[in-house]
Amino acid sequence: MSRDSYGEQLDRLTGLLAAMSRDAAAAIRGASSGLLQVDRDAAEAVLRGDALLDARRTDVEAMIPLLVARHQPVAGDLRLVLCAMRIAGDLERMGDLAVHVAKVALMRHPVTVVPPMATGVLTTLADAATRIADKTAVVLATRDPLDAMQLGLDDDEVDAAHASLLSMLVSAWPYGIESAIDLALVGRYYERYADHAVNVARQVVYLVTGDIRL
Amino acid sequence: MSRDSYGEQLDRLTGLLAAMSRDAAAAIRGASSGLLQVDRDAAEAVLRGDALLDARRTDVEAMIPLLVARHQPVAGDLRLVLCAMRIAGDLERMGDLAVHVAKVALMRHPVTVVPPMATGVLTTLADAATRIADKTAVVLATRDPLDAMQLGLDDDEVDAAHASLLSMLVSAWPYGIESAIDLALVGRYYERYADHAVNVARQVVYLVTGDIRL
Repeated sequence: MSRDSYGEQLDRLTGLLAAMSRDAAAAIRGASSGLLQVDRDAAEAVLRGDALLDARRTDVEAMIPLLVARHQPVAGDLRLVLCAMRIAGDLERMGDLAVHVAKVALMRHPVTVVPPMATGVLTTLADAATRIADKTAVVLATRDPLDAMQLGLDDDEVDAAHASLLSMLVSAWPYGIESAIDLALVGRYYERYADHAVNVARQVVYLVTGDIRL
Repeated sequence: MSRDSYGEQLDRLTGLLAAMSRDAAAAIRGASSGLLQVDRDAAEAVLRGDALLDARRTDVEAMIPLLVARHQPVAGDLRLVLCAMRIAGDLERMGDLAVHVAKVALMRHPVTVVPPMATGVLTTLADAATRIADKTAVVLATRDPLDAMQLGLDDDEVDAAHASLLSMLVSAWPYGIESAIDLALVGRYYERYADHAVNVARQVVYLVTGDIRL
């Protein structure tokens, strides 16, 4: 197999990860519309779209053993190939978590999951998670460690909004237990979504610097 | 580097994964004692023990690029090396989820998180998750695909107990919203713990058969 073909395979691998990161960002955007605008079509599109993320992860996983065995990549290429497996895993999981958010919205449709009292904190959570997802897609393309480190700030915003949401739910929440559980779980899904995005960024830093810390 | 040294490194890798699986099983056992027996020492030991799981995951991740670059493993060895990264990730995450359960128990200590009404369903959940963890440790040692497939049954039990718990919480739960949220999240942690154990088993099947489905 020629060197070109090896380069093409590495390009295909990075192209798959870029596509997955765009899909994961679109998924959380759609799930948040489902949740906050009670947009059924948007939520259903997230459920339909998840199969593509799963398929792309499978493609990544199928490519890697072949790439390693045939081309014996070294240094930066080897790091890319090994990280790609974990990055694909995180991106696929981000899609799953967006699906969980969309499913909560659909389960209660046409009733909103988010009473007016919680709209502010949920909007903050959704916006910060979406911003992280968009930045993750950029980081995957630029591989700029400084961009990657910026994600930490957005993740702090997610954690703070998640904590505010939980405080609100346990102090005089007037909408009952089912509503409180829905929102506690939704908060957890956003928080995990953001954590996985940060993991992706951490892997990109490792790709560039060989340093696993972030 | 000699062939022996390569073999020793592969043995060290599988030894690390075996140790991690035992630690992850001990963690959920301790967290469940913390939760169900209001055993503060057990819950605190889970928090202290988590650093070791994290350190072992870091060891696994540091070994893999070196192993691939120096020894260019093929076939089964290559699958082992590539899977080890994901297996270590799942086992470390199982430890984190056990820590989450232990933290809920400690946050309410000396008050129990589990009122008598929910003891049965939580015990079922904890026992099934612990059984899965123990079987995962066995599967990692034996690499028997039939053992691995058995885990699916225990995982169904976890999912069923988790669903019963949620139904109980949303229908006439007399202990208030904070208690309901604690238990909804605890249920979610057990469910995710079991999912990661099933992922480990799925990777072991792939190791043996090259088939990713389970």
